[in-house]
Amino acid sequence: MEKKPIGIFDSGVGGLTVYREIRKKFPYEDIIYFGDTARVPYGPKSPQTVIQYSLQNARFLLQQGAKIIVVACNTSSAVALEFLKRHFLVPVIGVIEPGTNAAIEKSLTGKIGIIGTEGTIRSNAYMEAIAEKIDSAEVFSSACPLFVPLAEEGWLDHPVTKMTIRKYLQPFISKNIDTLILGCTHYPILKPAIRKFLGKEIKLVDSAIAISNELKEILPDKETESLGKSQFFVSDNEEKFQKIASLILKHPIEPIKTVKLGESWYIE
Amino acid sequence: MEKKPIGIFDSGVGGLTVYREIRKKFPYEDIIYFGDTARVPYGPKSPQTVIQYSLQNARFLLQQGAKIIVVACNTSSAVALEFLKRHFLVPVIGVIEPGTNAAIEKSLTGKIGIIGTEGTIRSNAYMEAIAEKIDSAEVFSSACPLFVPLAEEGWLDHPVTKMTIRKYLQPFISKNIDTLILGCTHYPILKPAIRKFLGKEIKLVDSAIAISNELKEILPDKETESLGKSQFFVSDNEEKFQKIASLILKHPIEPIKTVKLGESWYIE
Repeated sequence: MEKKPIGIFDSGVGGLTVYREIRKKFPYEDIIYFGDTARVPYGPKSPQTVIQYSLQNARFLLQQGAKIIVVACNTSSAVALEFLKRHFLVPVIGVIEPGTNAAIEKSLTGKIGIIGTEGTIRSNAYMEAIAEKIDSAEVFSSACPLFVPLAEEGWLDHPVTKMTIRKYLQPFISKNIDTLILGCTHYPILKPAIRKFLGKEIKLVDSAIAISNELKEILPDKETESLGKSQFFVSDNEEKFQKIASLILKHPIEPIKTVKLGESWYIE
Repeated sequence: MEKKPIGIFDSGVGGLTVYREIRKKFPYEDIIYFGDTARVPYGPKSPQTVIQYSLQNARFLLQQGAKIIVVACNTSSAVALEFLKRHFLVPVIGVIEPGTNAAIEKSLTGKIGIIGTEGTIRSNAYMEAIAEKIDSAEVFSSACPLFVPLAEEGWLDHPVTKMTIRKYLQPFISKNIDTLILGCTHYPILKPAIRKFLGKEIKLVDSAIAISNELKEILPDKETESLGKSQFFVSDNEEKFQKIASLILKHPIEPIKTVKLGESWYIE
């Protein structure tokens, strides 16, 4: 029987933090990753646009034979997940629920912080997901639009990064949170610097780890004769994808193929 | 006779710095502005993609009756201008040549710095344009990917911005430049902070001012009975466009209409 791959899509290269965790836990599975590098970032885009792009991305993965769709992108998960679930027959999982569950499990005081892109924060998706599960939670959130370019610059330990972390995260300390959800796939790249600023008392929820744990429950990896293969597709700029991939995975990746987008427009 | 508008396009909201200068110099002209906010940023995208998007943007402006196309986006100007010029009958002007001319005029030592997005810098467009005009010029360039999100955060005078400016621009001081081209439409938003760091000795070339001066030469504004009207189109997220427009223009703008993009894809 033909082996069907796990499909992962993200708005760009950040989702490789999710790929990395899934690859660790599923050494025997084939994986297809699609990074929509031509249309990144999704964060500042409207819900309609994010839904439209997510639908196209998922459809592409299905045409490549994916048996399950992992939405690595937080903005897509926040905005488009229900829509994708209704639209397709294969299981579709996003990062919001696993991240929420992990945060609730870790938090002792119920004071939980969430950081993400403008789109994720504006959607209130994490906040609503937490509120549904525990009434007494106090949730604080903030968009951190500089974290993605800082991670992509590779300024992992630079004073600018430290100061930006202070500026964005100081208010969370004042609110006395005990758990912080890193609600963007790029943020695990800055995890050491964020941990250094927040100290050991505040627990960090890495949604890449949370979603791979969830996937493990619904899809146990079966040992086979051969290790799983990985295939990477991007919609643009393989070179930059490769550069940041090395930052995340510590090794170059191949093969990368480009999926070209054709477009037309109309006035609403 | 029907009044035909000046058409301006940019990858997003930054081109409003160009709009602002053109509006100042052409109070009697109608202006149509298109910001491709659904597909911003162009900086990290491949030349093919930037050309394709630029073509669509220009075609849209022409369908709205534009008599001249102003390419406010540096990445588009660097990558797609020649293509657009060959493709359309109306005049098409970009920011690279006016910026280059202004820099050459201002520089006494011929040591010129250029900052811009990754795409603009990688294209070497400014460097080649300067080299074509003066053999003896020494040109240094660097991409500053954090400047756009800093400008959009409105952190115009924040320590993070000062430190980032130092990190990116210190090497230009070491190279002893006497002129710096702000090769991205967002950068004039940070001009006061950049000037503070560089001091008065280093002249700044604002490509928005340079292109509006150039336009003034080829299209003298004729006084008419009524002041010119402005119309704004975006491809997504009017709200964010409005927010940053206020930062640049110091007043809200209207009307803004959304041009919706329809898409399909194929594998290369």
